[in-house]
Amino acid sequence: MRNKLKIGLFGFGCVGSGLYEVLNQSGLFNAHIEKIVVKDPAKDRSLPKNQFYYDPDVILEDLEINVVVELIDDAEAAYEIVTKAFKKGKHVVSANKKLIAEHLIELLTLKDEYGVSFLYEASSCASIPVIRNLEEYYNNDSLTGIEGICNGTTNYILTRLNNELRSFEEILKDAQDVGFAETDPTLDIDGFDSKFKLQILILHTFGLITTPQEVLNIGIRHIKEKDILFAKEKGYRIRLVSFARRIEEKIVAYVAPQFVRDSSFAYDINFEFNGVSIEALFSDKQVFIGKGAGSFPTASAVLSDISALQFDYKYEYKKLDECKATLANEAFLRAFVSSSDPESLKQIEFLEVDEEFVSQDYAYKVGTISLSQINHDLYRTHPELFISFFADSEICLHDPTKENKKAVNV
Amino acid sequence: MRNKLKIGLFGFGCVGSGLYEVLNQSGLFNAHIEKIVVKDPAKDRSLPKNQFYYDPDVILEDLEINVVVELIDDAEAAYEIVTKAFKKGKHVVSANKKLIAEHLIELLTLKDEYGVSFLYEASSCASIPVIRNLEEYYNNDSLTGIEGICNGTTNYILTRLNNELRSFEEILKDAQDVGFAETDPTLDIDGFDSKFKLQILILHTFGLITTPQEVLNIGIRHIKEKDILFAKEKGYRIRLVSFARRIEEKIVAYVAPQFVRDSSFAYDINFEFNGVSIEALFSDKQVFIGKGAGSFPTASAVLSDISALQFDYKYEYKKLDECKATLANEAFLRAFVSSSDPESLKQIEFLEVDEEFVSQDYAYKVGTISLSQINHDLYRTHPELFISFFADSEICLHDPTKENKKAVNV
Repeated sequence: MRNKLKIGLFGFGCVGSGLYEVLNQSGLFNAHIEKIVVKDPAKDRSLPKNQFYYDPDVILEDLEINVVVELIDDAEAAYEIVTKAFKKGKHVVSANKKLIAEHLIELLTLKDEYGVSFLYEASSCASIPVIRNLEEYYNNDSLTGIEGICNGTTNYILTRLNNELRSFEEILKDAQDVGFAETDPTLDIDGFDSKFKLQILILHTFGLITTPQEVLNIGIRHIKEKDILFAKEKGYRIRLVSFARRIEEKIVAYVAPQFVRDSSFAYDINFEFNGVSIEALFSDKQVFIGKGAGSFPTASAVLSDISALQFDYKYEYKKLDECKATLANEAFLRAFVSSSDPESLKQIEFLEVDEEFVSQDYAYKVGTISLSQINHDLYRTHPELFISFFADSEICLHDPTKENKKAVNV
Repeated sequence: MRNKLKIGLFGFGCVGSGLYEVLNQSGLFNAHIEKIVVKDPAKDRSLPKNQFYYDPDVILEDLEINVVVELIDDAEAAYEIVTKAFKKGKHVVSANKKLIAEHLIELLTLKDEYGVSFLYEASSCASIPVIRNLEEYYNNDSLTGIEGICNGTTNYILTRLNNELRSFEEILKDAQDVGFAETDPTLDIDGFDSKFKLQILILHTFGLITTPQEVLNIGIRHIKEKDILFAKEKGYRIRLVSFARRIEEKIVAYVAPQFVRDSSFAYDINFEFNGVSIEALFSDKQVFIGKGAGSFPTASAVLSDISALQFDYKYEYKKLDECKATLANEAFLRAFVSSSDPESLKQIEFLEVDEEFVSQDYAYKVGTISLSQINHDLYRTHPELFISFFADSEICLHDPTKENKKAVNV
């Protein structure tokens, strides 16, 4: 009853070479890597040169190959590979969150049109089986929220910042030296990677399709040592959280730094670990923790997808058909905004200020703000500002300060 | 393609009535509870009396009913129901860990003989989807260990003991008053419940079938306030851990109290929460945390099993065929043994003593012991002794003190 899987593998970097080894050791006898296509003929690899091809069509035009495993960095090249694989009737396993987040509708439509399976467990939180569980296990439970530490690079940096109280730039440099951060760290530290993963989680949690433009992402690039000190003094740790919560028929979603207390699952997710918390009506709160990066942990998720293809496994996207919710355009929540230039704090409008501190070179405010005024332009053009939300504060669709006043008037 | 599920439900207690509600709210339109059989006609229930039957055969002899959901307390009665259901060709969903642990081989053989499915996600850790993930997701990864906080009652008691420094008896009484412990708490506090769950986890992690007699369980009944104080002073918390680790081709397995540090997943599992940590060769360490008891959380796991039956889902028990490992008869590990009667400590043989404390009414030793000398008889007949292992210490198949000496001689 098991399908024989003849695999064409794209990419032989960290995850691709990990998959090669993991598959060999796994005892998964129905799956075999037939051909490997890579980009750069000059690069040294752990297999002899004659094992590699450089033309994608060597795999894509091979009628024998029924599964394409796409593990390359370049999302645009991946798009060409994956869409052509669909059209050739091949199942696809991918770990490419950027590709998926940017082309959600098109990829889902195309895979249906050609009747193939498209699996991508490794794309969100690497080794943590979150997509499979959302699809298979929580498919009849009404989910109210999902929150994740989905990016190992930023979590590694934030953990070390908290432990060592050195500058962001120093720790980033260290992270780059030990291979936990890319030479160009933008996708990670500005929250893009976390956002792509959040979009995939939102799809499988609520059945909602989003575009990268619709979902806010602000990162940790502007964090100051005094911000870390503030957090420590108050018993918080700072985490970059991929956040989505259903309130009535609206989904409030963002990627942003959060102050988390030890009562939060995120508090104890340290260094390169990832974690996801799922809030459900029946099964209550569930937390999954595991390695969010690394050759073998990520490859193990890819292997699980390959293994599932033996049994014709497809994501059902049950919640996609049922989804009545839309993204919230506005929400109100408690925020911390600090600045090395006290004057510049004025551009953030607080509906209510709980705490305020001003000195010559550092100032902060804590209070209720509207989420809609925070956007990526503001984040990008104001390196003096650090913005963080509070994990344990309420989040409302309507201005809570007005509601209080109204309540008083009545 | 989905099967229509006509369900016969046994039991309408906490989980059974929870399932009734959860199923109604779930939008799982292919599944319907046709008949409910309960034991006690006199008991008040949330549905009218005419909805209940009292003769199991009303369900078991009903040819229309294709799924039996067994949610009763009595493991012996459950045995009769489940085996007859198999023989009548009905799929079974159960949450009864005692039934499963005591009759593993027979139940697996019988369900195969009659070609039916037997699912029991709720039996281990209630809402946490651990069995499904072991079966579906980690089925091609080589697993080296599994550890769980699988019993909400003892974890609730241990959390409160740690927070409040009151006596075990007082906290147990409180737990009984708020419904977190049974009137007869034996199964929970002596580690039987944790052991039944461990046996199920061992089956799906390693493919090894065990009997309750083969697996050691010692509980928390004999814990003293001074033991809690010792743990707190050294930065430990005490947890009742279901433990299994593969070393070479041996599985070392026990249920026992452990001192855990904040680097352990178990440290932050508090009150009635459960948690499971899976150690795998490729995917590394994975932790799952969720509610280990309660009407809706447990019912949600039962619902997931029912939902899976729509698609003819069966556990594959892939590791059962591949398993070469056997239970270890002996192991060596670091232990803490305390006593209110210093003399009685002498009956535990330490191969090496790291720490020792003696006063008139309290003494303890910390050091390396052989696991084989600890057994349930010793535990039962010596209420003055509290035995706990260390989560962060090594565990060996051979006497490590002898190996050291040998190494020195050579």
